[in-house]
Amino acid sequence: MSGTLGVAVIGTGRMGADHVRRIDRYVSGARVAAVADLDGDRAKELSAGLPGCTAHTDVAAALDAPGVQAVVVASPGPAHEEALYEAFARELPVLCEKPLTPDGAGALRVMEAEQRLGRRLVQVGFMRRHDAEYEQLKSWLDAGAHGRPLFLHCRHRNVSSPSFFTSEMLVNDSVVHEVDAARWLLGQEIAAVTVMAPATAAGAPRGVRDPQLVLLETVGGAIVDVEVFVNCGFGYQVQCEAVCETGSARIGDGWSMVTQGAGRWGGAIDQDYTVRFSNAYDRQLQRWVEATRAGRTEGPSAWDGYAAAAVCEAGVRAQRTGVRTTVELVERPPLYC
Amino acid sequence: MSGTLGVAVIGTGRMGADHVRRIDRYVSGARVAAVADLDGDRAKELSAGLPGCTAHTDVAAALDAPGVQAVVVASPGPAHEEALYEAFARELPVLCEKPLTPDGAGALRVMEAEQRLGRRLVQVGFMRRHDAEYEQLKSWLDAGAHGRPLFLHCRHRNVSSPSFFTSEMLVNDSVVHEVDAARWLLGQEIAAVTVMAPATAAGAPRGVRDPQLVLLETVGGAIVDVEVFVNCGFGYQVQCEAVCETGSARIGDGWSMVTQGAGRWGGAIDQDYTVRFSNAYDRQLQRWVEATRAGRTEGPSAWDGYAAAAVCEAGVRAQRTGVRTTVELVERPPLYC
Amino acid sequence: MSGTLGVAVIGTGRMGADHVRRIDRYVSGARVAAVADLDGDRAKELSAGLPGCTAHTDVAAALDAPGVQAVVVASPGPAHEEALYEAFARELPVLCEKPLTPDGAGALRVMEAEQRLGRRLVQVGFMRRHDAEYEQLKSWLDAGAHGRPLFLHCRHRNVSSPSFFTSEMLVNDSVVHEVDAARWLLGQEIAAVTVMAPATAAGAPRGVRDPQLVLLETVGGAIVDVEVFVNCGFGYQVQCEAVCETGSARIGDGWSMVTQGAGRWGGAIDQDYTVRFSNAYDRQLQRWVEATRAGRTEGPSAWDGYAAAAVCEAGVRAQRTGVRTTVELVERPPLYC
Amino acid sequence: MSGTLGVAVIGTGRMGADHVRRIDRYVSGARVAAVADLDGDRAKELSAGLPGCTAHTDVAAALDAPGVQAVVVASPGPAHEEALYEAFARELPVLCEKPLTPDGAGALRVMEAEQRLGRRLVQVGFMRRHDAEYEQLKSWLDAGAHGRPLFLHCRHRNVSSPSFFTSEMLVNDSVVHEVDAARWLLGQEIAAVTVMAPATAAGAPRGVRDPQLVLLETVGGAIVDVEVFVNCGFGYQVQCEAVCETGSARIGDGWSMVTQGAGRWGGAIDQDYTVRFSNAYDRQLQRWVEATRAGRTEGPSAWDGYAAAAVCEAGVRAQRTGVRTTVELVERPPLYC
Repeated sequence: MSGTLGVAVIGTGRMGADHVRRIDRYVSGARVAAVADLDGDRAKELSAGLPGCTAHTDVAAALDAPGVQAVVVASPGPAHEEALYEAFARELPVLCEKPLTPDGAGALRVMEAEQRLGRRLVQVGFMRRHDAEYEQLKSWLDAGAHGRPLFLHCRHRNVSSPSFFTSEMLVNDSVVHEVDAARWLLGQEIAAVTVMAPATAAGAPRGVRDPQLVLLETVGGAIVDVEVFVNCGFGYQVQCEAVCETGSARIGDGWSMVTQGAGRWGGAIDQDYTVRFSNAYDRQLQRWVEATRAGRTEGPSAWDGYAAAAVCEAGVRAQRTGVRTTVELVERPPLYC
Repeated sequence: MSGTLGVAVIGTGRMGADHVRRIDRYVSGARVAAVADLDGDRAKELSAGLPGCTAHTDVAAALDAPGVQAVVVASPGPAHEEALYEAFARELPVLCEKPLTPDGAGALRVMEAEQRLGRRLVQVGFMRRHDAEYEQLKSWLDAGAHGRPLFLHCRHRNVSSPSFFTSEMLVNDSVVHEVDAARWLLGQEIAAVTVMAPATAAGAPRGVRDPQLVLLETVGGAIVDVEVFVNCGFGYQVQCEAVCETGSARIGDGWSMVTQGAGRWGGAIDQDYTVRFSNAYDRQLQRWVEATRAGRTEGPSAWDGYAAAAVCEAGVRAQRTGVRTTVELVERPPLYC
Repeated sequence: MSGTLGVAVIGTGRMGADHVRRIDRYVSGARVAAVADLDGDRAKELSAGLPGCTAHTDVAAALDAPGVQAVVVASPGPAHEEALYEAFARELPVLCEKPLTPDGAGALRVMEAEQRLGRRLVQVGFMRRHDAEYEQLKSWLDAGAHGRPLFLHCRHRNVSSPSFFTSEMLVNDSVVHEVDAARWLLGQEIAAVTVMAPATAAGAPRGVRDPQLVLLETVGGAIVDVEVFVNCGFGYQVQCEAVCETGSARIGDGWSMVTQGAGRWGGAIDQDYTVRFSNAYDRQLQRWVEATRAGRTEGPSAWDGYAAAAVCEAGVRAQRTGVRTTVELVERPPLYC
Repeated sequence: MSGTLGVAVIGTGRMGADHVRRIDRYVSGARVAAVADLDGDRAKELSAGLPGCTAHTDVAAALDAPGVQAVVVASPGPAHEEALYEAFARELPVLCEKPLTPDGAGALRVMEAEQRLGRRLVQVGFMRRHDAEYEQLKSWLDAGAHGRPLFLHCRHRNVSSPSFFTSEMLVNDSVVHEVDAARWLLGQEIAAVTVMAPATAAGAPRGVRDPQLVLLETVGGAIVDVEVFVNCGFGYQVQCEAVCETGSARIGDGWSMVTQGAGRWGGAIDQDYTVRFSNAYDRQLQRWVEATRAGRTEGPSAWDGYAAAAVCEAGVRAQRTGVRTTVELVERPPLYC
């Protein structure tokens, strides 16, 4: 595939619109060829400023639009599965926002469909893998100079959660990032999940148990503890300390300009993931475009999407029961080995 | 009590010898009047350089020595109880190294004996309460500007453990400090303990499960997670991050001189508690001397020693069983309220 | 101007090749339409992988090549002036690497030529203005919450200097960045320069006085002290602390992943400007492409190039004489106000 | 000399009262035997709480008081010389607050008098030499692993200056600490001083030129730049970065507890030297008491007091003239080699 890559963007909510903007303004070698949204007006509005971009209310129509060579799926989670099948039917490479599907069963079906094609088409949008700090941490762990990893101590904090957020979403929507990051950093599957909750913060919306402490145990004997606190009020923070047998490394300190005044020194805390991970989103898209133009599918696969979904399902059960819950995965298909 | 305080130091091992040195060289208003150790030669050797200090192999004899007005108990844990009763018999104020007693039952007996006296004589040597950083954290928590505390994230790392260290001692000897610090910082008792262990580090002595993750739940709904890793190889680190409803504070970064060279910037990590907590030990003794000269007994009480022992007992059970274990405390006697 | 911007890159050395790579792979909305270098083979080699890109040994020929709509000048400094006139003759917008010209006199001629055109075509490649940390510092200063700026304390360190580096180049090639950054951050011209030198470092090449301390005084009464040390051996560091009347802010700490091991904590120091300022170069080009496509010329102007050259000329005189040397600037032409 | 050291404290202003408090409460092995102040009421008030301490309005009477074995001189600078002679007449060891004398001529006379005694009795109160961070920096420099020192970059900031502060006192009272610290850290005399001043801060008292930039050149070719800013409003900061041929080290970051809240992370800045250097003052006194009890005189000598005075005199001339001013020292007497 040579020349500029024509991309159809499915879903034009916050995330979809963001992908459109990135492709249009920051990504080299790609253009938005079509957008689709159930809300046709929003799709039209978004496509208006993009030369050669058509607007659709139907996924199939968008994928059939002139010049479409690849797909970004950014619609709500429950709509992903169908959009993926439409892409598979046309053998179009897909960058699918996380979650691949809301549950493990759907992810299993997607993997089966992809295996029937005989080759990978799907990359899942776990964008932390493209963050410079996470890459540093991964390199440090892979170098292995300090022995095996024993702990990942993680913090995942948001200023506040959207109005529709539930206790389950702390696992499904927030901790899912740590689930993928832990699997990727450690190169190990998650074997069990335990969830504990301290007193609920005053800032948590009625009915939401926030914060929580999620404990993941990997098959290789590492423990991942995640403080997830989505209404902490003071900032967006994603921190991770990896403790190995003879050393540790941590990322996410959020250190840039340091100021002094009135008896205090310090810096600002990011208020939003769009600031903290803006570069990671750019790089994810740029790398996907480059790989796709070169005929390759790389990055987190449908298997990674499935494993994350399975861990989160166990996590929600652990939340409800209050006890350690094991994670059962199907055997890993050769396509994903 | 006016004039210089005469102190008997019981036990002349590493800790006892250290107390003698501190009283002699750093503490104002006190002098070592007697030392006692089963190893009489060691006691004599230590007392040799101290004018007016007598050496003994017997606790009672040391406490009866001329000029003794107060006692520092730094003998091995199992010997504490008897030494305390000797002090009580003479109504001498005592600074007793932690643990007050090795088990909760002994601590209960000590409390009963002290209650019979009708007034407090015992301060337990939880020296972290005298560390400047812990005091800052305590003040920050007490100010309460950021709501209730929800988490304490703690790290307790040693370069290596002594040859006699066991898996249980990770709880009894190391985490006991976090138990007291958490109780003091939060002003809450511990209600339950869970212990998890990742893969054992290659540097751990044969048979010692190191590191471990100890999870304490307080009666007020805070969760305290402690990474205890006594053979981490790289340094002595005691860190604590308190997360409240709308803010957090952390101590223990160990930041002093920062150097640059050969592509790296950074600082040294303390290799020993004697460096990290040297000032805390000094201040503990100085404050105890001042309070004692003024006729007061302050600081962590026998109740604090008892509560720490009870939590550690539950912790060792949790270690063995792998399940969450509740902590049962007797009702708090009025003397300690 | 709509569609993809065709760019001619003049000069294919390290800097020129880097610009070609950025336009090709990272910049959205632009493509390399022509490259020119006296070394025709290098130009051909570079253009080989770029569809529609022609190679030239002559600037004029490159600018006349099909599809050229804008120019990046990345040839050696002495060749800039002629390349600029060729661009002016064709009314092509230019991004000119620093220095605009090696001396103030040449920069004056360029400004006169640009004024005859009646509009700005030149942006000078002072890429620090596009660095996220410098932008934070600029915003902080512009907000003015801490009063007037009084000091900029600057460090400019390189691991080692190229073989052709001279004492004068510490000013002309290194400190020139601080000259522009200071003028931009403070919004003030430089009024005088003093240069001091401590003992020469053992790592400095024979005949090069390294490090030096360059002191700039601005017309508004701020003092800028720059430690320039181009053979420090340990890293590439660009740091700046702005001290205002009631507060300060600093950038350049170079903090990302923090590791611990063997008694040390800390991080890596960048070894090269390409790491530290990679994003700034990307953003400079992207913004220039966007502005150019929109028919605008923004960023540092020929005046900024002239002022930097004039300050550096005074700086080299100050180096030679050892005394404070005033900077004389012509009156600022209306085009640059 | 055995037993508790009886100390006469001359001067009971802020500094003298502080020394009295330290000797009474923190220093082991010493007691306040006499205090003297022109303001007899203040002397009496201070001595009231100290058993065996007499109050005087006359230095000679205080030194002749029962039990006086050593002297702390904390009276105003102009009164030091006479107090030193009284101590010399009685061969009493002296800890003399800085400055030894207000000018170099007085210091020369003190040195001559001390040489006539044939042995050192005077230690000058440059307390930074007893600060743990400065000691780390000194050790790092002495180890010499990174080559010769080339720069010391220093910051000396106060929240605000006392009402009687003058422009000259920025040199004589503030930078004098950096003068001694630089001489001690580098083991080199200062050869020349230059003083520059940016615009005066709005917070500076009428007539006081604040801040200033003081540049010291050492005989070994190091440059020491000191930002002195005694009305910065935001905190008390003493920072020093030593840059050697292949590495650097810095102290004074003031890092202890780090808090997060409302979009900001950071720490508190000390507001006063009594916080920052409290331990240094304690250790200075404790070490002086120990050395004195052992019959030794250590620490900064009258020569150090003289050299600091001579540098400050040159500094004030440099301030007035605006030009580089050389420092002329007498030959160093053998007693101080």
